[in-house]
Amino acid sequence: MQIKNSDIPIPSLRRLPIYHRVIEGLKRKNVSKVSSHKLSQITGFTASQIRQDISFVCSIGQQGYGYNVDELYFELSRVLKTTNPLKAILIGAGNLGRAVASNLMTKQAGINLIGIFDKNEAMSGKLIKEIPIRNLYVLDEFCHDNSPKVAILCIPEIDARTMATQLRQLGIKGILNFSEANLSAEFPDLMVEDVSFSDSLLSLRYYLE
Amino acid sequence: MQIKNSDIPIPSLRRLPIYHRVIEGLKRKNVSKVSSHKLSQITGFTASQIRQDISFVCSIGQQGYGYNVDELYFELSRVLKTTNPLKAILIGAGNLGRAVASNLMTKQAGINLIGIFDKNEAMSGKLIKEIPIRNLYVLDEFCHDNSPKVAILCIPEIDARTMATQLRQLGIKGILNFSEANLSAEFPDLMVEDVSFSDSLLSLRYYLE
Repeated sequence: MQIKNSDIPIPSLRRLPIYHRVIEGLKRKNVSKVSSHKLSQITGFTASQIRQDISFVCSIGQQGYGYNVDELYFELSRVLKTTNPLKAILIGAGNLGRAVASNLMTKQAGINLIGIFDKNEAMSGKLIKEIPIRNLYVLDEFCHDNSPKVAILCIPEIDARTMATQLRQLGIKGILNFSEANLSAEFPDLMVEDVSFSDSLLSLRYYLE
Repeated sequence: MQIKNSDIPIPSLRRLPIYHRVIEGLKRKNVSKVSSHKLSQITGFTASQIRQDISFVCSIGQQGYGYNVDELYFELSRVLKTTNPLKAILIGAGNLGRAVASNLMTKQAGINLIGIFDKNEAMSGKLIKEIPIRNLYVLDEFCHDNSPKVAILCIPEIDARTMATQLRQLGIKGILNFSEANLSAEFPDLMVEDVSFSDSLLSLRYYLE
């Protein structure tokens, strides 16, 4: 993702979803208080790092007491806007698209998946967790009628640029890109998060003999 | 991934696989030279950032000439060890596992996928790109016979910790973790890269109104 002006530094911002997920788990277990040291044990980040990150979100921690779990969850949800999900569509209903769709529909990911599209006509009408797969022919009409703001691309690199151009014209503002096209560089006017499995593996590989 | 001692700073290291992928593409198009400015246009990183990153890999750029594509590709491949792939196994052959396996088998990701495992016996014997799915019952035996060093986890969070513990005992040194368990914090003696789609989406969501 390209750096944009923000009150929260990018590295801190990238850790907030992890805290959100961990705090959500504690809340579910009816834990009422949590210290930065406990959060450090769970997440692997240092306690001072955690205190600094959370200071961008709220100032509700107390020395020797820790954070109130409900309040911290509320503030993290507010900053990450999970309670105000954006409408999203997913393009490409292959193995990856189906996995991502199923995963995201069970999560507080700040989006509300309202449509799934694939160019393969044979898939049309099949359901992924109650959402029917539609053919790409009806993408324009669907976007005009429903105004999604986020698109998740689970398509090959070769199709990604053309699709991103079309989506931009249809009012999409943010893209989670699983293809290997460098969309964040090519579409600086959109918010793009490029995800590459092979890049992650190469970084991991570097440390292993 | 937790920070380890290394000659290359982590942020630079994370960009090297992107350069490797881009340079590979240029090589395939028979491009012989490339400037940092051209790489900046393709990747979106600044030219000075790119020159700095590449200086950790080699010193073969010439002012006003640019980089020799073949040499740069050779040096990036050497540093990222793509020419010396590590044996890897994948656990979990659901939609995500199948997508990741298919993706990685066509990429220079520094690994050589030698086995795929799933606990569902009905999947045993089915092929993913010529690799048969095996039942988890034979994981121990397979690892003793073949000594894989990397594991890719495409299993639910609830199974991830037990599996990581078992894999560590079997000699696995690095894990690419697609479950939402915080394995990098819980297994500090392993190299773990945690990947979460919903975290990526929440970071993206933050910038969108």
